Amino acid sequence: QVGHSKSRCQCLNGMVNRVKPLLIEKLEVYAPSHSCQHMEIIVTLKNVEGKKCLNPEAPIVKNNIEKWMKNQRSVQ
Amino acid sequence: QVGHSKSRCQCLNGMVNRVKPLLIEKLEVYAPSHSCQHMEIIVTLKNVEGKKCLNPEAPIVKNNIEKWMKNQRSVQ
Repeated sequence: QVGHSKSRCQCLNGMVNRVKPLLIEKLEVYAPSHSCQHMEIIVTLKNVEGKKCLNPEAPIVKNNIEKWMKNQRSVQ
Repeated sequence: QVGHSKSRCQCLNGMVNRVKPLLIEKLEVYAPSHSCQHMEIIVTLKNVEGKKCLNPEAPIVKNNIEKWMKNQRSVQ
């Protein structure tokens, strides 16, 4: 799902609009740069699914990330 | 700043409460896990400063991340 190609965008093989926040082990957000003009959001999931690209435009993605970060704080 | 030690927390050598959002090239958020009980936020900065750990509890960090993500969307 996270592919490698000439332009160094990582999310070229499709994105998902939602993941279960509880499954997120790690969140990576890449700002647009000279090597990839898009913002990219990649989550590493706890189960075997591994890395998934999230659609930065999906409203649920934005809300979930905020909710997820809030939950991580309350977990401590 | 991002250190390595027995427990696999990465932010053991101090955290900062704020960075200039414009300088953020990449954001990594690690959920608490068996190897590190804390949520960790690591940013890679565009200038020579490289990786910095952000204090997840600092209010300005939370707001800046949301603002930063909003700006990345509008940049596209």
